Amino acid sequence: WARAVRGLLLDVSGVLYDSGGDGGVPIAGSAEAVRRIKASGLKLRFCTNETQATREKFVKKLQGLGFDISVGEVTAPAPAACRILKERGLRPHLLVHNDLVPEFAEIDKTNPNCVVIGDAAENFTYANLNEAFRVLIGMEKPVLISLGKGRYYKETDGLKLDVGAYMKALEYACDVQAEVVGKPAKTFFESALAEMGVPPEQAIMIGDDIVSDVGGAQQCGMRAVQVRTGKYRPCDENHPHVKPDAYVDNLAEAVDIILQQL
Amino acid sequence: WARAVRGLLLDVSGVLYDSGGDGGVPIAGSAEAVRRIKASGLKLRFCTNETQATREKFVKKLQGLGFDISVGEVTAPAPAACRILKERGLRPHLLVHNDLVPEFAEIDKTNPNCVVIGDAAENFTYANLNEAFRVLIGMEKPVLISLGKGRYYKETDGLKLDVGAYMKALEYACDVQAEVVGKPAKTFFESALAEMGVPPEQAIMIGDDIVSDVGGAQQCGMRAVQVRTGKYRPCDENHPHVKPDAYVDNLAEAVDIILQQL
Repeated sequence: WARAVRGLLLDVSGVLYDSGGDGGVPIAGSAEAVRRIKASGLKLRFCTNETQATREKFVKKLQGLGFDISVGEVTAPAPAACRILKERGLRPHLLVHNDLVPEFAEIDKTNPNCVVIGDAAENFTYANLNEAFRVLIGMEKPVLISLGKGRYYKETDGLKLDVGAYMKALEYACDVQAEVVGKPAKTFFESALAEMGVPPEQAIMIGDDIVSDVGGAQQCGMRAVQVRTGKYRPCDENHPHVKPDAYVDNLAEAVDIILQQL
Repeated sequence: WARAVRGLLLDVSGVLYDSGGDGGVPIAGSAEAVRRIKASGLKLRFCTNETQATREKFVKKLQGLGFDISVGEVTAPAPAACRILKERGLRPHLLVHNDLVPEFAEIDKTNPNCVVIGDAAENFTYANLNEAFRVLIGMEKPVLISLGKGRYYKETDGLKLDVGAYMKALEYACDVQAEVVGKPAKTFFESALAEMGVPPEQAIMIGDDIVSDVGGAQQCGMRAVQVRTGKYRPCDENHPHVKPDAYVDNLAEAVDIILQQL
């Protein structure tokens, strides 16, 4: 599975580090693995559904944890959503994390004609959910844009519901289907590949999410490897629809194998 | 549609009154209509998905609004759920409104092996949703029991997301299907009919919810009428799957027509 590769896409949370209220902790060997990828000459893209912070803030946190990463190397849902909003003249009501709001600074938010939902975390209050619902149900044709559709993720203090669960709540209440920006949307992986200038058959996605990372990348024609860190659970190995090209214990092991094949 | 009827099932919120933080306001003519049904000799059952209060408290509120109603006339989801929990030896983690908790007083809640979700309203916090999710995902075979699956309802201060939306969030996150107690579950309508001693073909359901009230009752072989009060919206009249046997402006009009046919 590791042959003829020119570019790697790395999921971040659960692959580089375990996130948490305290900022998170690096996964052993991952910072070193990123440095080895860069030294090898392979193209590299960090491909995250993180929507709890601007890319600037997100990258700063990872640098603080010892990772060699810059804003220009990150593919994330909020900038992708902004492109869609501008193209289609959509003015969003935002149900997102406070720290993500600056990504939408240049977008007109008056008199909303769509709702954008991200991983709002503590902003997923009863009042905020009702408000987003009322904006949606009040539209003649409700438009709901979701920054990802993850089910849940792991923080240092336990599992948390991810944006996908709240997306489903609004979808059901308003009888609409959300447009998903971010993994596993095909357009999202395609942007990351284009940014690297690598065709899908020469790229490998490495992630901890069997559906969003592995399934999504494979749908795009890439190979995909699941790490046994982050939200990985042993029952993922019996997933009814998705079978990774390989399992590895962690990012360091994946990079060992890939670099041996170069 | 109003001929050969021996029993009526009335939805409560949106038919008798519009609920709200202030206790709600009666819908004009509804209190009088209930009195006329009782005077006519027709059997009567109040069939509600209300799970924000015990039946005792709920009935007291309605009496205060001028309705002739008693606890013994009410079919509601919580007692139905308690029967299921006892039969199957299930110990619930409750995500319900504080005022509903006394309905579960006799149920063992230690070391939970299922989650029961109701319309928890202000209790639908980010923390409580994550907690219910963690209990569910921690089970070998998650069991989720939902007291209804309504999409939303109208209170005096606006539309609110109903239990169905939060049920969908947990279903998606845990990849399970909830067992729904309450309308539109067939067993729920069948209990109400049994309590009246009336067969479905001699009963009419009157409700404001096109799916839960009208669709559910029709699935049971009853006739069903939609009132143009409560959560009714004009677009309900173009519903793709459900067509009521009749529309009426309000309960009073339905009762006028039914009593003329006796």
